Amino acid sequence: MLAVAGDSAAGKTTLTRGLAQTLGTDRCVVFSADDYQRFDRTERTGTALTPVHPDSNYLSILEQHLQLLATGQPVLKPVYDHTTGLRTRPELVEPNDFVIVHGVLPLHSKLARACFDVSVYLDPAEDIRRCWKLRRDTVERGYTDEQVRESLAAAESASVSVIRPQRAEADIVVRFAGIDGRDDPPGTPLSAEVLLRNTIAQPDLAQILQPTLTRTAHLRMTRDTDGRPVDSLHIHGYAPAEENAAAELLIWRALGEPDTEVPMCLGNTGTGIRSTPLAITQMLLRYHMMRGSR
Amino acid sequence: MLAVAGDSAAGKTTLTRGLAQTLGTDRCVVFSADDYQRFDRTERTGTALTPVHPDSNYLSILEQHLQLLATGQPVLKPVYDHTTGLRTRPELVEPNDFVIVHGVLPLHSKLARACFDVSVYLDPAEDIRRCWKLRRDTVERGYTDEQVRESLAAAESASVSVIRPQRAEADIVVRFAGIDGRDDPPGTPLSAEVLLRNTIAQPDLAQILQPTLTRTAHLRMTRDTDGRPVDSLHIHGYAPAEENAAAELLIWRALGEPDTEVPMCLGNTGTGIRSTPLAITQMLLRYHMMRGSR
Repeated sequence: MLAVAGDSAAGKTTLTRGLAQTLGTDRCVVFSADDYQRFDRTERTGTALTPVHPDSNYLSILEQHLQLLATGQPVLKPVYDHTTGLRTRPELVEPNDFVIVHGVLPLHSKLARACFDVSVYLDPAEDIRRCWKLRRDTVERGYTDEQVRESLAAAESASVSVIRPQRAEADIVVRFAGIDGRDDPPGTPLSAEVLLRNTIAQPDLAQILQPTLTRTAHLRMTRDTDGRPVDSLHIHGYAPAEENAAAELLIWRALGEPDTEVPMCLGNTGTGIRSTPLAITQMLLRYHMMRGSR
Repeated sequence: MLAVAGDSAAGKTTLTRGLAQTLGTDRCVVFSADDYQRFDRTERTGTALTPVHPDSNYLSILEQHLQLLATGQPVLKPVYDHTTGLRTRPELVEPNDFVIVHGVLPLHSKLARACFDVSVYLDPAEDIRRCWKLRRDTVERGYTDEQVRESLAAAESASVSVIRPQRAEADIVVRFAGIDGRDDPPGTPLSAEVLLRNTIAQPDLAQILQPTLTRTAHLRMTRDTDGRPVDSLHIHGYAPAEENAAAELLIWRALGEPDTEVPMCLGNTGTGIRSTPLAITQMLLRYHMMRGSR
């Protein structure tokens, strides 16, 4: 069972979509941890509560349901309609070979964290996340620019106090960002820095990555926020397409698929741009889920 | 945790109300097992499913929730609005000192049965139940006589196949009925026959009941449906009020309350008639719940 944690519009849905496709959607349950709302939107009006606030969520029930899913049992999951702001009838979720739990708070409590085989925190550069949120909420959800900016401002306090601290709790942290000082043409995929913590058995990328591919990806030993040594995988979106494809294939095959090609569902950003950093991140998560499920 | 099982209008709510009041409503959770509907009413239209049909219910989730409650954990219980026929948003149920689960199918499965400290099946004479259902559904729920009769006819098959078999699974079976051959005036409370199975440690009523009170209550050894010996407590609604009051007080004090009077909430039929058979049944269940909770 995988946790995909991150702030609003951090890329959880995009990452999850391709990952579920490569695992096989018929073997995969995708589960929103943001549905455990305690109140309808109108019930929160006039209070200081935002949907992200822990007191706005049935967090102990979320923990219970994660435990049940992790032990192969079905749950009757509450449903929150983020469009209408209403809680509606619950839905049956039956476990499957792979369970992907995405949300803003799946790693909030120790009990919840203990349910996951692997966890990832999406930590895009803040200007990137704001840009993604603005585009999604105006184009797909019908909000005005002004409304999205207000929503971001209103959510900032909870982001700082309860969402971002989960960064320290994940096995893998992915930061999508541009690279300072480069002047790439529009449409160049973002680069990513993938922190691979030793809280789980990470694949031996030092053995896998070859010197000829350093323009696409290279591994660097660095110090984590808490001072401990950690591997940081840098994946460059701007590298030439053929080098990216070669690096993807090398990693794909080294991570357990020696005889197949890289599936096209990986690296799909949903904007028509294919992203090698996204694809390789998905490969790493797929690797852990395949191991965790065996 | 107590199960109160029985067909529609078998008296579950009436029995439960007084019982919860005497246990203390602040220490008691009353829980409907009929809320685990899989479909809205319109979704069942045109199918052979009735709300009582096991396939119409999330029975495995009901089992899971009973197990959680029995082990002191909260659940997010689904809610079915029996008036509109719609499933609505779930509600948090937190365990308490006493949990009373009432419904048509709480004893359907072995796993569910294993969760209860004590279980009662309400098995009123069928003409009595039809009379109760007709009164309740026309007066309180706004149906016509004809609609209630149709509803009874439609439910008969599931009653026979899935509800009534639970009679064999309960620790206590209560049958409210008139007594053949008597010509009591209108308003005379019904009598009750209470089968006390040895599946749990029943109180020693042979020691408690005194010969002077036999007009109100007497114990008779009989054979259960499966041929085994069982105690059957007969409680007569028609006995004189002062004898009934004396019998109630005797049993109340013998079952663990030597220093208090019989609470007025016991025996309240909700129709203005006080029923000693109902009161004594509630005392017996209270006795088991007090023991089970210690």
